[in-house]
Amino acid sequence: MDRELKMDASTLEAFLAREFPQVGADFAIESLSADLLEVRLKVADRHLRPGGTVSGPSMFALADVSVYLAVLARLGPVALAVTTNCSIDFMRKPAAGVDLICRCRLLKLGKLLAVGDALIFSDGGDEALARATLTYAIPPTR
Amino acid sequence: MDRELKMDASTLEAFLAREFPQVGADFAIESLSADLLEVRLKVADRHLRPGGTVSGPSMFALADVSVYLAVLARLGPVALAVTTNCSIDFMRKPAAGVDLICRCRLLKLGKLLAVGDALIFSDGGDEALARATLTYAIPPTR
Amino acid sequence: MDRELKMDASTLEAFLAREFPQVGADFAIESLSADLLEVRLKVADRHLRPGGTVSGPSMFALADVSVYLAVLARLGPVALAVTTNCSIDFMRKPAAGVDLICRCRLLKLGKLLAVGDALIFSDGGDEALARATLTYAIPPTR
Amino acid sequence: MDRELKMDASTLEAFLAREFPQVGADFAIESLSADLLEVRLKVADRHLRPGGTVSGPSMFALADVSVYLAVLARLGPVALAVTTNCSIDFMRKPAAGVDLICRCRLLKLGKLLAVGDALIFSDGGDEALARATLTYAIPPTR
Repeated sequence: MDRELKMDASTLEAFLAREFPQVGADFAIESLSADLLEVRLKVADRHLRPGGTVSGPSMFALADVSVYLAVLARLGPVALAVTTNCSIDFMRKPAAGVDLICRCRLLKLGKLLAVGDALIFSDGGDEALARATLTYAIPPTR
Repeated sequence: MDRELKMDASTLEAFLAREFPQVGADFAIESLSADLLEVRLKVADRHLRPGGTVSGPSMFALADVSVYLAVLARLGPVALAVTTNCSIDFMRKPAAGVDLICRCRLLKLGKLLAVGDALIFSDGGDEALARATLTYAIPPTR
Repeated sequence: MDRELKMDASTLEAFLAREFPQVGADFAIESLSADLLEVRLKVADRHLRPGGTVSGPSMFALADVSVYLAVLARLGPVALAVTTNCSIDFMRKPAAGVDLICRCRLLKLGKLLAVGDALIFSDGGDEALARATLTYAIPPTR
Repeated sequence: MDRELKMDASTLEAFLAREFPQVGADFAIESLSADLLEVRLKVADRHLRPGGTVSGPSMFALADVSVYLAVLARLGPVALAVTTNCSIDFMRKPAAGVDLICRCRLLKLGKLLAVGDALIFSDGGDEALARATLTYAIPPTR
């Protein structure tokens, strides 16, 4: 598996802001290495459910964008990968009023499919709130 | 499996609007029977990705709320079920500028866990864009 | 989605017996149409867990082979599809001493990926014991 | 999450051999700590597919038994946990003629549900062949 990075954290963030103007500002890249990408969800009112916890769809969105960025970091900005599958387990309630941090690792980067794992934590917490695995289809034209 | 309905479509919709003020207005109940619940996502700009197609998180949210409502229709409004697991497959690109329709069936309604299947279509389309299965944990206090 | 069948039930069964000599005899095709494939698991001691119920891996194997055969029925015997993903929910305990029946539908048959749904019943039962969704990667050489 | 172990590797192996006589001998525990359980599938002819690679159902069985044992190691041998959900991704072809090693971590051990992650490798290999997440329901009587 080719582990060389073709985009760094600030390039990825600029790409996200440009290509996904509706949601790009929700996310920030905390760290990026060959092994691990950490993405922050800057929690705002629109991400919350009654009771003040982050909604399931917001956690899904965080896992989805994290694996997407982990794939792009290796393929470069030309790729147009699309999510084909996600399994997600919601295990603990998010702490109220705290950002979420997603730790994401690529398990496979093949010619056609990429698979990444994501663990989501409350910022500062040490037990995962949710885990997800996502598969992306990679266009054959690259 | 107890198939009696304890809430009808308009009661469910009112419950959704009251309990989930941030997203309730995004959804409308198309039909409800013992076998099938159909929920509409009233697609707006905030649900879209570049190119005009509905985003993955919006489809996840539609499947999630649909199974939730299918569970509540049988348990009544007192229950506080929480999603524990979702697997979702994205199979086709949504048509641009068209609402989504989710067709949802409960496969299990046990004492602790409920499982529901959801198929998502573009309004008027006949091939599923996405399919999802969700598990809800049901609080033991009911 | 091309729904024409390129193999019938007896051809599929012969293919299975020839290509999978170790497990082919465990399965029989009950019915095959453009919409639905039904496959029987002929339950034997090796499929059981203590208590006499069919094991989880045996149910997984039944769902896996059913979607595989549903794909081959449309592609013909030349294809060499491989499972890339499965999500499976175990919902009820199988009845003891009874075969299992899997009802399988293809949701997508794309150039690269096929997605199929499987519901597993005890023979004669009317509530699903398990549901599964499987994705197959289809070799680009077809 | 309570991380104390109530069973050690040899007690777990003895439990498996006694309770699952049909498959217990297929598996051996390589290592067990509070963080990680490693289980070996002793690959035999019955686990293989044409071409000599380990079958999907055999990898599913390895992931399933590994998470089960990781749960029992914490709960003790009285528990009768049952699999309710599994998502599994098959990413690479197993090497022929080589045992499989499953590395399993518990992500949650709640009162009702336990969630564990499993990565499967060819013995001696360093890229995961498959990943799986399993949920077990824990009987309320413990």
